[in-house]
Amino acid sequence: MQPLKLLSLSIAMLVCHYAVAQTADVSDLPRKGKLLTEIYSSTILKENRLGIDTKRSIKVYLPAGYDHSNKRYPVIYFLHNIFWNNDQMFEDGRVVTLMDRAIVSGVMGEFIMVVPDYKTATTGSLYENSPVSGRWLDHTTDEIVPFIDKKFRTIPHQTSRAVVGEFMGGRGALKLAMTRPDIFSVAYALHPVATGMGELPWAYLRINWQKLFASKSYPDQSLEGIEQIFLSVSQAFLPNEKRPPLYCDFFMEMVNNTPTLLPDNVRKAREGFLLDESLDACADNLRKLSGIALDWGRFDPTYAHVDSNREFSRKLEDLGIEHEAEEYRGNPYDKVWLEDGRFYTRVLPFLAKHLIFAEAASVSK
Amino acid sequence: MQPLKLLSLSIAMLVCHYAVAQTADVSDLPRKGKLLTEIYSSTILKENRLGIDTKRSIKVYLPAGYDHSNKRYPVIYFLHNIFWNNDQMFEDGRVVTLMDRAIVSGVMGEFIMVVPDYKTATTGSLYENSPVSGRWLDHTTDEIVPFIDKKFRTIPHQTSRAVVGEFMGGRGALKLAMTRPDIFSVAYALHPVATGMGELPWAYLRINWQKLFASKSYPDQSLEGIEQIFLSVSQAFLPNEKRPPLYCDFFMEMVNNTPTLLPDNVRKAREGFLLDESLDACADNLRKLSGIALDWGRFDPTYAHVDSNREFSRKLEDLGIEHEAEEYRGNPYDKVWLEDGRFYTRVLPFLAKHLIFAEAASVSK
Amino acid sequence: MQPLKLLSLSIAMLVCHYAVAQTADVSDLPRKGKLLTEIYSSTILKENRLGIDTKRSIKVYLPAGYDHSNKRYPVIYFLHNIFWNNDQMFEDGRVVTLMDRAIVSGVMGEFIMVVPDYKTATTGSLYENSPVSGRWLDHTTDEIVPFIDKKFRTIPHQTSRAVVGEFMGGRGALKLAMTRPDIFSVAYALHPVATGMGELPWAYLRINWQKLFASKSYPDQSLEGIEQIFLSVSQAFLPNEKRPPLYCDFFMEMVNNTPTLLPDNVRKAREGFLLDESLDACADNLRKLSGIALDWGRFDPTYAHVDSNREFSRKLEDLGIEHEAEEYRGNPYDKVWLEDGRFYTRVLPFLAKHLIFAEAASVSK
Amino acid sequence: MQPLKLLSLSIAMLVCHYAVAQTADVSDLPRKGKLLTEIYSSTILKENRLGIDTKRSIKVYLPAGYDHSNKRYPVIYFLHNIFWNNDQMFEDGRVVTLMDRAIVSGVMGEFIMVVPDYKTATTGSLYENSPVSGRWLDHTTDEIVPFIDKKFRTIPHQTSRAVVGEFMGGRGALKLAMTRPDIFSVAYALHPVATGMGELPWAYLRINWQKLFASKSYPDQSLEGIEQIFLSVSQAFLPNEKRPPLYCDFFMEMVNNTPTLLPDNVRKAREGFLLDESLDACADNLRKLSGIALDWGRFDPTYAHVDSNREFSRKLEDLGIEHEAEEYRGNPYDKVWLEDGRFYTRVLPFLAKHLIFAEAASVSK
Repeated sequence: MQPLKLLSLSIAMLVCHYAVAQTADVSDLPRKGKLLTEIYSSTILKENRLGIDTKRSIKVYLPAGYDHSNKRYPVIYFLHNIFWNNDQMFEDGRVVTLMDRAIVSGVMGEFIMVVPDYKTATTGSLYENSPVSGRWLDHTTDEIVPFIDKKFRTIPHQTSRAVVGEFMGGRGALKLAMTRPDIFSVAYALHPVATGMGELPWAYLRINWQKLFASKSYPDQSLEGIEQIFLSVSQAFLPNEKRPPLYCDFFMEMVNNTPTLLPDNVRKAREGFLLDESLDACADNLRKLSGIALDWGRFDPTYAHVDSNREFSRKLEDLGIEHEAEEYRGNPYDKVWLEDGRFYTRVLPFLAKHLIFAEAASVSK
Repeated sequence: MQPLKLLSLSIAMLVCHYAVAQTADVSDLPRKGKLLTEIYSSTILKENRLGIDTKRSIKVYLPAGYDHSNKRYPVIYFLHNIFWNNDQMFEDGRVVTLMDRAIVSGVMGEFIMVVPDYKTATTGSLYENSPVSGRWLDHTTDEIVPFIDKKFRTIPHQTSRAVVGEFMGGRGALKLAMTRPDIFSVAYALHPVATGMGELPWAYLRINWQKLFASKSYPDQSLEGIEQIFLSVSQAFLPNEKRPPLYCDFFMEMVNNTPTLLPDNVRKAREGFLLDESLDACADNLRKLSGIALDWGRFDPTYAHVDSNREFSRKLEDLGIEHEAEEYRGNPYDKVWLEDGRFYTRVLPFLAKHLIFAEAASVSK
Repeated sequence: MQPLKLLSLSIAMLVCHYAVAQTADVSDLPRKGKLLTEIYSSTILKENRLGIDTKRSIKVYLPAGYDHSNKRYPVIYFLHNIFWNNDQMFEDGRVVTLMDRAIVSGVMGEFIMVVPDYKTATTGSLYENSPVSGRWLDHTTDEIVPFIDKKFRTIPHQTSRAVVGEFMGGRGALKLAMTRPDIFSVAYALHPVATGMGELPWAYLRINWQKLFASKSYPDQSLEGIEQIFLSVSQAFLPNEKRPPLYCDFFMEMVNNTPTLLPDNVRKAREGFLLDESLDACADNLRKLSGIALDWGRFDPTYAHVDSNREFSRKLEDLGIEHEAEEYRGNPYDKVWLEDGRFYTRVLPFLAKHLIFAEAASVSK
Repeated sequence: MQPLKLLSLSIAMLVCHYAVAQTADVSDLPRKGKLLTEIYSSTILKENRLGIDTKRSIKVYLPAGYDHSNKRYPVIYFLHNIFWNNDQMFEDGRVVTLMDRAIVSGVMGEFIMVVPDYKTATTGSLYENSPVSGRWLDHTTDEIVPFIDKKFRTIPHQTSRAVVGEFMGGRGALKLAMTRPDIFSVAYALHPVATGMGELPWAYLRINWQKLFASKSYPDQSLEGIEQIFLSVSQAFLPNEKRPPLYCDFFMEMVNNTPTLLPDNVRKAREGFLLDESLDACADNLRKLSGIALDWGRFDPTYAHVDSNREFSRKLEDLGIEHEAEEYRGNPYDKVWLEDGRFYTRVLPFLAKHLIFAEAASVSK
């Protein structure tokens, strides 16, 4: 924002908010980015027991200047939530407009954004590697990233690569930060889930085990959300290839017709699913990143999400890991994708600050 | 930030962080603001029982352009913490540099900042009106604000006036927002205290009552911080002009040599001191403001501050009062006045968005 | 427990747990109480808009000795939860057995227990007085209590009368303690709900307002539990006799097809429903009781219940009101009515300690 | 309590509380226990770098019947808090009276209580094994227990041995439960500390590191409590025999004159000191116990204690470990040793229920 611009606006209007000047109207500017859909045939995802479709669509946002330059750009990988997909994310056009505006108004330099497709027949990926439910992390780092680097003019280096996600995708962003600093150097998790246990023991989660155990096939659309989620958790972290049709064990089993806790399975599921359980082991990886952030809305009706994120930040602090961790008013459903929402005012400036936008090669040309 | 500037910087450097471009180096720019010290002789503060010095210093920051224009400027009133004063606030020069930089880099238009002096012989003002400890709120709105509007080229209207404070000064900022929307239309409380009770009953606060009751004079520098604070709370909210030398009642009194709770006095002190207790009554006032924000650091060792602010935000929400309320990683001692601290990255942009920077009169000239 | 008894048992068994001696086997003892069902025709409940059945059943437990003595007994009034009734409570016989055992083993002297019927066509009573949903508090104190005192040999005095309830009935027990110390002198709330707001603002409760507003009749069994509950809250605390068929206002109304918060109605509903809102006003009443207790299970999946009860206890403490407030491991569904559950090990001993079991009149006979 | 007794009392008094009958007046009964002081010369404690006195006093309570029988008794080992000792514990006679009363009134069968001495020149034992600060756990299990079993008529088996402690001694009781089920089968921790981290990262604890690092000798009585405690934590869990005079490392060290976090040392100290960190590893041990309980006061001014205990209970639950975990109103300082305090109403009945009071050998004599 140039002070000069402010002055001229001030004279034009009798009463003006300074903020008005900050929100450049980009609707009639020619600097609009472009959204492509690529199709990728995955080899890695073939290894699964749940009939996952190995043809994956990939959404790719290219900035306005892409076609008229030979520059290389940093890349943001965005991981979507469960019960969601990368088509829905772009349906109303809001996300592309926000990115166009961010670039035009100088919030951030030009970048590419890639949104792979993590949907499945039920919940979608939990962003893990599992012999039963698929090696989604490997799929991302070993298939998608090389594919994008080959096909587009990216800066093919971790210092110019960020991973961002929301909800379960926020879990994914943190998981990749914790395990693959060779691929990503910046991570931003929007309202991540499964960062910790929260206040409720596993045995008290409102899961209808009778209904879940009565399930005779997969996918079983008659299951409610909570049962679908914990079935996915079980398939990911308690895989059992010898137990069709669900191919997993559970942390509760029916004993004398009563759901009964299996502590060892709780421990395994916990260690796999809840990110704080592997923080100690991953601390050195996290220290290699140049920027780590998470944020979350205070009024998520699932209090465990809020409680866990507070504690996750406390644990990062104890490990001496530099990060940002903001808890904002409201819930994560209505504060992120607004014009002045978290994505525009927090995520993009954070990436702008921590990503490297130029590389020796491209500049020297 | 102009994209052009970014490009030229990119070419100049082999590897650059985009963020570098955001932090303009202002050290050699001529656009430096000016810090004045005014002295104000208060009539209102004469009414007190504690020997308050009625000669008050006022720090006034004028932006670089002030002397070379006949423009009028919005004004930020800043309320400092207890055990602190307005001289200390400017001692290391950091605050003025941040404001200069914010104006030069376009974070905010030019503005005046006023920091009155709320120190006393012990804790300093709690930002209240009390016959015993002084009418500090009235002093601010009825003396300081008119004085500043008369002496400087301010935009003398509430829509161009913000009140900001930290810690107890944050309480002050919220209290003025709750009671004087005719004076201020924007409020930002940095890590406010006394917004609510927290998790601990009053009887369990670690106050050494024996020591406090043994106090034979005021001020008594031998008292520790916690006793000084609750003495100030008592003088402000349980004033008793007939009880020298401390001129107040307490919410505990010695009964048979044991500190014993007086529930009625707890209630009075609570209703006066804790802001959430008067939220219902002040809701209509708050609705008149154009911007309300509070933030706080998660790792304040006094958990009650954190807990209370979370709940204060929840109560604002129930009253349908638009506001921002961010809880950030870290504590409020080391995150606010850094180059990329809360004041620079959160407070000033919030004020920029909600204050009105131009007025009909000045523009029409 | 007599030490002698312990000794003889010790000799009889090679290895014994002391606890064995504590659990007297009463199955073959003749000292079994008796459960009666009375029917009461209510006048007070006629005043309502929801078609409440004014014929109410009352369960009455008489201790084993009742028929063979002319003694008078203290009375425990028990208030059941919503979505529940007084028939269900006695169906499996467990409650009567626990009371028989308590009396035989000396946990408590002989007493009468009365369980009125608070069910309605939907949720059941929230234990309030409402022109729309019925004056249930008045029904209890002005109809049921006199009826019982007339029909049975009670000690007809508040010092020999306790009110106990669980969940919403716990709310009822506390509400009666807060308003009618002339009737009850001892109160025990088992896992009470609605003692405070919890961590979530009203606007964030997962209520399907579209569905609720689409309701065209009352009762509407197609509504889910959460919608039924907040409809009952609205009928109780936002009654509107001119608005058929639901006869109430709401704290959200549809504005432009969007559920929109009405802060004034939030305030009214909050002040009526949440007990902590009227604690200040009721403090003197509570001080008249000889015993107040609440307890709750830590692992209630609705965290707001846990959070609110913690804070309710904190507020009682600030008011200097003596009470017990235990948070126990587990949830309130499976810890209360066990052989060594909360009712047997906490409620009955508390009542034993605070109720008066003998009266001048009966003793003098 | 016999109903008969109640009746006779009822007739004697015009108005009586049932509770009166429960509190037998034992002051004039001949059934008073006896308190001995033994001296034990420890070999194990010789291994330390802090000059620990190896002559340890042991308080032993023998029940009234001890001298007139040849019975064997279960034994309760009681672990006292830091900054406290076993002499102070018995100074006002209250503890012995409570135990006498419990036995007379049948709350519990006759037992022996042993209170070893864990004081040191500074804080006292943290109940750990350390080459620098002493092997206090081994001292307890390998020296004190055999000594007591040899000298007194105990039932020398883990099923008749309980370990109880308060505050840091509560930590000790849990630690022994987690590591030595071969010695103890029942554990009750009264308001244990160090069960978890709480809400505050280590770097934010209010430790005056400058002062601690300036310490030139041990013991250094000029250090405040918090510095003494974390010095003891360091000596216990970051021992360094090559670093006189304090013989330990720290989780903060001065770097460029600034206290700087050493994450690896945080991790080590955390894993050693905080009990929840080793719960997974000790789960099988805990499952061998017949009774595990902890309780704590809600209004401990150190919120971390409350928060940690809540979470510790949640973790036990996830491990499927049966336990009791009550949070009571008030603080742990004034609710435990009252006539109707936690020790009398909770600890002793819990031990009565889970300890085995008779053994084949003694009974058969």
